This record gives sequence, structure tokens and C-alpha cells, in this order.
Amino acid sequence: MRHTIQALVENKFGVLARISSLFSARGYNINSLAVGETNDSTISCMTIVVNAKDERILEQIKKQLNKLVDVITVSDLTKKDYIDRELLLLKVDSSDGGEKEIQLLVKRFGAKVLEEKAKYSIIEFSGDHSRIKELLEECRKKGIKELVRTGKIAIVK
Amino acid sequence: MRHTIQALVENKFGVLARISSLFSARGYNINSLAVGETNDSTISCMTIVVNAKDERILEQIKKQLNKLVDVITVSDLTKKDYIDRELLLLKVDSSDGGEKEIQLLVKRFGAKVLEEKAKYSIIEFSGDHSRIKELLEECRKKGIKELVRTGKIAIVK
Repeated sequence: MRHTIQALVENKFGVLARISSLFSARGYNINSLAVGETNDSTISCMTIVVNAKDERILEQIKKQLNKLVDVITVSDLTKKDYIDRELLLLKVDSSDGGEKEIQLLVKRFGAKVLEEKAKYSIIEFSGDHSRIKELLEECRKKGIKELVRTGKIAIVK
Repeated sequence: MRHTIQALVENKFGVLARISSLFSARGYNINSLAVGETNDSTISCMTIVVNAKDERILEQIKKQLNKLVDVITVSDLTKKDYIDRELLLLKVDSSDGGEKEIQLLVKRFGAKVLEEKAKYSIIEFSGDHSRIKELLEECRKKGIKELVRTGKIAIVK
């Protein structure tokens, strides 16, 4: 099961290394991670998505996260009512004259074209997991030359 | 000076811990970090923003990153021609009946209202550094109850 964990942490060096070590020491791969400052620049918010192979181990990790001095709060959003989004930048192949199709696609999804060149278009899109999956499937038909994603962030309603 | 470093890495556990340790061991705080899968699900892309207090040390860090077995490529985008974006989710106070103003603000910036409640609105916005700064300044006048950001991602033109 996929878990979305959010931690508020002190914005200091070493915190990220300690937190990521907690996961890797237990063989947990972090699927995606987004770290940015909150409204208070001394505090960062981390949104971590992991596949919990073993719920008990994840409980242990959360407890140990809570014990770290620089961790302020930890919450598992998985069972909460939240909105999540992820941002993508992607270069889609348009070398076979597919700009029109790309424009239609972008319109249908409410994405944006940031740059149009002879060989590729750069697209910006934010959405939830399922919308992103759909867009990527469509873009793969054209050919994705490059894809950069932020990892998921979430906010409780 | 702010540097934006992008690394393609194997999507395995432990990689993030090793990379973040490289920075923290030299007293470097990571300003923002975004990690997500690329078009090839076995490879992740990390976008790291750091303040280089000492350019020489940053050069060392980049070299050491390159030496890590699970790191495929490292590039410093700072002097390249790239597009960057960051995504925000924020809860803005609307308890004093400020929904109208929030709607106008959202329209002006090309942001989206994802939820409207009596006490707050949840807004989604993506933009570059300066647009985000502007939007946050406006929202702070209303009162930000919560702010989650992805960290910056970037794509070379």
C-alpha cells in the first residue's frame, strides 16, 4: 500500500540525510520526495511517498522520525481527506509535425506549452496521480524526450 | 550564489541517503529538493537547489556525486538556458469574507482554487521563483494558514 507521509522539520543541514537514512536502513525506497520551505522559512515541509511492504515497519519508521530532534511533526495522510498534486515538465517529440496534436492534448488536459521548437515542445502540467498517468500515456504515444517531476505534495482539507 | 543541480540516479533505496549525506557532511543545507521517477521507472531525477557559500566545495560535492555508483549523470544547470517551475498548495484565510479578493488574486496569477470553505480557500499555483514570490506576498496579506511546496524542478531548453 502506498503511504503519503508529511513531516515538518527544522530547515537545517543534515536533517534530510538523517530522515532518508531512517528509510533506507530498513530497505524502504522512497518513491517520491518533495522538500520546500513552509510559510516560516526556518521550517521545511517534506512530503514522502513510500510503498509499505510491511505496515509494522512503517509504524516503526514513523515513531523514529518523531524522535528526531529536528522533526517537529509527522503525519501519515493516507487515511485523511487531502488534496494532492504533482508537477511535471516534459519535452514531447514534435519532429513529425505533431505540434497541432500536442496543442489539442494540452488543451484537453488544461496543461501549458512553455516552448515550441521544431523538434520538441516543452509542456507544464500539474494534477493528481490519475490525471498525470493519463497525460503521460498520451504523451508516450508521441514520444517523451525528457521528463522531470516534482514528487507529490498534499494538503489536508 | 544559488545553484540548481540535477542528477539522474538509479531508483533504489539508499541513494537519496547517500546523496544528502554528501551535502550535509560539508555543512551544505539543501534549499529544496524534488525527486521523482523519469520516463524510465528505474531512473529517478533529483533537482537540488543549494546556496554555494564556497564554489570550490560545491565543485568537490559535484565530483563526489559523479563517483557514486548509483548516480548516472550530474549537471549544474546554473549557467544553462533552462525553464524552472515550482508547485504550491496553500490554505489562505478567508474568514473575514475575503473569498472575492482571493478569486481576483487567483485569476490575476493564473492560479486555481481547489476548495472554498467558510474559513479558508485552498489554492494551487505553479510558476517560477519570482511569480511565486509575488503570489506569496499577496497571500500573506490575507493570511496563509498552511503552505506546502514541491521544490523547484527544471528542464534545459
